[in-house]
Amino acid sequence: MVPHGAGTDRPTSFHAHHAPVGALATFTLGRHHHDSGPGNELGRAAPGAVYAGYRDGEGKSAILNLLPFFPVSTSDLERYVGSSAAQAGHVPRRLFSEADIVREVGWTTDRWRAGDVVLEVLTPVEQLPDPRLAPLADQRDAFVPAVTLRLSVANPGTQPRELFFALGNHQGWAAIPGLHGLASRTGYGFAVDSTDARRFLAFDPEWEFNRTHDHALFGLGSLAGLRLGVPPGGSRTLTIVVGWWKEGPVTYGKRMAYWYTRLFSGLADVLAHALARAPKVAALCAARDAELTATALNPEQRFLVAHSTRGYYASTQLLDDGGRPRWVVNEGEYLMLNTFDLTVDMAFFEARFQPWALKNVLEQFASEYRYESRLFDPADPTRLLPGGVAFCHDMGVQNTWSPDGSSAYEVEGLDRACFSFMSCEELTNWVLCAGIYWTRTRDTAFLAHHAGLLVECQRSLLNRDHPDSTQRRGWMQCEDERCRGGGEITTYDSLDHSLGQSRGNGYLAGKMWASHVVLADLLGYAGRPDAVAASREAALRSAAAIAASADPTSGIMPSLLDKPSTAPIIPAIEALAYPAYMGLKDAVSATGPFGGMITALQRHLRAVLVEGVCLYPDGGWKLSASADNSWASKIHLCQWVARNVLNVHQGADGIRADRAHADWQRVGSANHAVSDQFRSGVAIGSLYYPRIVTTILWLDGGRCP
Amino acid sequence: MVPHGAGTDRPTSFHAHHAPVGALATFTLGRHHHDSGPGNELGRAAPGAVYAGYRDGEGKSAILNLLPFFPVSTSDLERYVGSSAAQAGHVPRRLFSEADIVREVGWTTDRWRAGDVVLEVLTPVEQLPDPRLAPLADQRDAFVPAVTLRLSVANPGTQPRELFFALGNHQGWAAIPGLHGLASRTGYGFAVDSTDARRFLAFDPEWEFNRTHDHALFGLGSLAGLRLGVPPGGSRTLTIVVGWWKEGPVTYGKRMAYWYTRLFSGLADVLAHALARAPKVAALCAARDAELTATALNPEQRFLVAHSTRGYYASTQLLDDGGRPRWVVNEGEYLMLNTFDLTVDMAFFEARFQPWALKNVLEQFASEYRYESRLFDPADPTRLLPGGVAFCHDMGVQNTWSPDGSSAYEVEGLDRACFSFMSCEELTNWVLCAGIYWTRTRDTAFLAHHAGLLVECQRSLLNRDHPDSTQRRGWMQCEDERCRGGGEITTYDSLDHSLGQSRGNGYLAGKMWASHVVLADLLGYAGRPDAVAASREAALRSAAAIAASADPTSGIMPSLLDKPSTAPIIPAIEALAYPAYMGLKDAVSATGPFGGMITALQRHLRAVLVEGVCLYPDGGWKLSASADNSWASKIHLCQWVARNVLNVHQGADGIRADRAHADWQRVGSANHAVSDQFRSGVAIGSLYYPRIVTTILWLDGGRCP
Repeated sequence: MVPHGAGTDRPTSFHAHHAPVGALATFTLGRHHHDSGPGNELGRAAPGAVYAGYRDGEGKSAILNLLPFFPVSTSDLERYVGSSAAQAGHVPRRLFSEADIVREVGWTTDRWRAGDVVLEVLTPVEQLPDPRLAPLADQRDAFVPAVTLRLSVANPGTQPRELFFALGNHQGWAAIPGLHGLASRTGYGFAVDSTDARRFLAFDPEWEFNRTHDHALFGLGSLAGLRLGVPPGGSRTLTIVVGWWKEGPVTYGKRMAYWYTRLFSGLADVLAHALARAPKVAALCAARDAELTATALNPEQRFLVAHSTRGYYASTQLLDDGGRPRWVVNEGEYLMLNTFDLTVDMAFFEARFQPWALKNVLEQFASEYRYESRLFDPADPTRLLPGGVAFCHDMGVQNTWSPDGSSAYEVEGLDRACFSFMSCEELTNWVLCAGIYWTRTRDTAFLAHHAGLLVECQRSLLNRDHPDSTQRRGWMQCEDERCRGGGEITTYDSLDHSLGQSRGNGYLAGKMWASHVVLADLLGYAGRPDAVAASREAALRSAAAIAASADPTSGIMPSLLDKPSTAPIIPAIEALAYPAYMGLKDAVSATGPFGGMITALQRHLRAVLVEGVCLYPDGGWKLSASADNSWASKIHLCQWVARNVLNVHQGADGIRADRAHADWQRVGSANHAVSDQFRSGVAIGSLYYPRIVTTILWLDGGRCP
Repeated sequence: MVPHGAGTDRPTSFHAHHAPVGALATFTLGRHHHDSGPGNELGRAAPGAVYAGYRDGEGKSAILNLLPFFPVSTSDLERYVGSSAAQAGHVPRRLFSEADIVREVGWTTDRWRAGDVVLEVLTPVEQLPDPRLAPLADQRDAFVPAVTLRLSVANPGTQPRELFFALGNHQGWAAIPGLHGLASRTGYGFAVDSTDARRFLAFDPEWEFNRTHDHALFGLGSLAGLRLGVPPGGSRTLTIVVGWWKEGPVTYGKRMAYWYTRLFSGLADVLAHALARAPKVAALCAARDAELTATALNPEQRFLVAHSTRGYYASTQLLDDGGRPRWVVNEGEYLMLNTFDLTVDMAFFEARFQPWALKNVLEQFASEYRYESRLFDPADPTRLLPGGVAFCHDMGVQNTWSPDGSSAYEVEGLDRACFSFMSCEELTNWVLCAGIYWTRTRDTAFLAHHAGLLVECQRSLLNRDHPDSTQRRGWMQCEDERCRGGGEITTYDSLDHSLGQSRGNGYLAGKMWASHVVLADLLGYAGRPDAVAASREAALRSAAAIAASADPTSGIMPSLLDKPSTAPIIPAIEALAYPAYMGLKDAVSATGPFGGMITALQRHLRAVLVEGVCLYPDGGWKLSASADNSWASKIHLCQWVARNVLNVHQGADGIRADRAHADWQRVGSANHAVSDQFRSGVAIGSLYYPRIVTTILWLDGGRCP
């Protein structure tokens, strides 16, 4: 557990996701005085409030002690009674502040201590069963759309005290038949394990404490909560489960429901199951927290692993496509479905905990979101050349599936600008993800089934360098015809040309090199040894081109391999991750076939990890020397490559970098849980993002365990 | 058609609802630079934008001429591309302003003219078929969840011009198979009758006009629209239908779906039907507009009839309760289900156009939302006395049905404060609504079925004066036990005691008088002539008490009949509406059995309709001399009573009052479409409200036609 707040130099006031698996739902909590609580299918925190604490005293002398997890004003009594709100009375609130709160962040436990209250949110990290095959009972455990909270209040004094918990700013609350809980029409509810905790609905805490009647479930109340007496000298702990339920078709274009609606009969079933399982969840979480604590990672790294894991689950969506499961990871605030650029970064996490999900996404791309296209040389955009297979950037947006063969994001005719095509990069992503999947599973049936596609990928990759083999240079030279005379971009779409454009890009050349290394490996297992040589040759060509781009004096490589004047980038090293993860030691060895490139990249990296080039003043990594827009997911991936592949360690500067990156999330993204794009440490886009979970690589110190 | 804007002294910049029947949906339009467009299940305008107009010129010299129906900034391009939004370019916009726009408001047509554009929204007012009995085809016409727009652009010049229409700030747009339209995942879409109108999705109009590609349906676009060339010297008119679709159970507590999901297979079916029916809708609307224009009402009154009718439909919800239809009118911004206080005011409208709906609501109250309770005399709250039947304030809130026998609004133990019980008033409301329903339908089966309940109502009414017949005074003296020692309130819940408290209230005494008059009439037809005498006697008692309360000198009555010092109220006269509507001429005649009260009320009204007492400086009516909170629905009801029952005409002051009330809506409620509660002409609550449709009474000059 990484301590934050009182007694440490780490702040506590930042949001984190706390999400079940596959429900596109989250319990967002942690930022002081902001929207907090349950939400779903949103790219931001749902408007809401969480009250947790205790009341001391009675009547006029009462004081409500609360964790500060609500906006400044959430009462809507005013709308009903005009200016005569005085009747609501007033109960002083003591809000715990930064000076009072200790927050302990574990991989699966997020815990706040303040005064005599302890609040925990438990979100297990588990091996997820394959929904095509697993028994119902296992699936109900893994995919229950609920999170578990534990709220403890001690009463060391001699006066009465009352535990207080409530969720505010949701409408249409009602009791849940057969359960001790409350549900909102907005699609979620909560239940508690102790029936002596009294339920209530109210406009606000004051309304509840001042009421002179015993009509606890006030139908107009937007605040739903629990009260429980804590005797002097005693303490009470409540287990509270918060669950979601949205039934019927929830997607458009292709109609699908949530997979969990196959597993549960309704919200009451969800909550009852979550309550019953709460002791098991607590045990699982304790073990996972201990597992992270036992690693050699420093506390900032452990925080980043935990924080990014929470963000990943919040974007996951397991859907029911007529009885067949569909795995979707939404693109954070943008809510695009299965953005392939993100899939490749999250593949390390998915391969570890749910490899069937990674396969599921790869097969969705292979069967629905691929296309065949021709290419053109920018020197002559009107002459179309042989091309080959490519994949879409994404599968749709906002629960709306795009038509097969098209993404929500990409449009024709743009010249290396945001929203242009990413054909070549997505092509590398399919190959690289397949490699990651294979490494983890050794699923020979998968390789056999897709052997033809792998060969097509190889042909398309070669053509995207150049269809004329004599003109190949080891990087992307030819543009996809869908660009209509314009040009492709990389996943770094909002950066300048240092990372944004595909043509000549050293980062993408690295991914093409890695793809051929992976293909050379996979094609042998896939029964196509005949095709291996072409990829070996292509990999050598790319590696040579990359190595040759380095300035002989400084060792620094330009971002565009054919433009020596362009600014250097850290992600020149990114693609080393794939062969390294796959255990292809020769490929990433300074003495192997690509040793020249490996050595050159090592030198490049050392040269750019300098403040003012690719380091910020706080020690954080700046992906491109020419753009103040640095992406956490990619930094963490490149950190792993630097430390575990290139053996570049920064010593104290590395610890400083980890601290900076953790603070970017805790301070720069405090309102947005975990985010990806930072400008000088402040989140500016890709908020509420799943991709940062590249941190999972840090756990195994090197490669696929 | 009532003209507004250029050339008149009436403003055009105010919202109006444009709603189908029974879908709890509305196309909110009219306020400049505010959220506009389709929404559903909301108590406010949905965040959105409507663009309607035309583009002149090309490229750098292009100008977009638009009606001003969108917030100042709606683009979300910035979220994706950071600060480099410059790539979106810029197309100058000419926004038509108050000086350019003529708005013609008819009963069913809302029309804007500006420059060379004409935009109409058509919302028919029809006799609605009984969903239990009517053929499918009739129901598909009446209950199609769609509204019809017509957009015309002329091009009197010699340069190319392009019609432009778009809905902005909705996510997840996609094409609709088999139709020329676009649908959003948020549950609505639109279709157009001309396939040569080119569809597009974009971030904003500039994105669309500047795009260099032909990928018109850009998946991330939040703006969905149409473009159509208008040749020089020509003009084009598009019929655009906007439809809603929300399937599956939509209510909680009791699970029900929208009735329209029985009638249509999906949004495509809805939109196709609406397009096919558009010519019929246009003809129906022309006839209805002419009908209103042909009345003797002045233009401000005609505006109020039209504006309030639109507001009513926006709150209607026809639900499918396992094959049985349920009629619900939501309480405007508060979204309470079938608030009985509103039902009684809207009953005149429903009796005219859909009496089955009124019956449906009465029977929901009779079977599910009634209760039996005892009473207490406030002098001795601990001694419970015989009481009788009463009805709940409402049936739930926010699509969430309350448990049977309870409302969302009422809580126990309050003493004449907002959220206390309205037992006695809701009891009068069931009787009065039954009278209205009977008058319109002569449904003898209904009376026969409910004869026992009518007798129970009579007994309960008598007891709520006092169970001891010797102590009866003609007004409510005893409180419902649910108040637990506190006291009941009337529908005027947010006013001071002049209208807010029930006990001794002259307004409620009037409704008790009217209820007994109605009961004396109905019980005869219901086969219970034996019970008539008791109501005749009670009516005489109330009438005598009301008449006796008048100050002999001024003729002014106090609001609380037993407290002569209390401020006067206009609604002392309100209850005359019911016998008058029912054609019970004797009951409202100065020479009839209640002639003393009639004459006294006439004198009271004349005495209070004075500035500083019950008139505002603008001539508008102030319901209570002691409260600056005046309700449009009740003003219009009392205006009808004054003019058509009491023969109190204000002459020029009456025309000034109508103008004031119209301006309260157009100016004081400009952001909120039609509202009910006004403080000195500014809407302060009960926004987006259905109840103002008491204006329907004005159409027949006197009583049930």
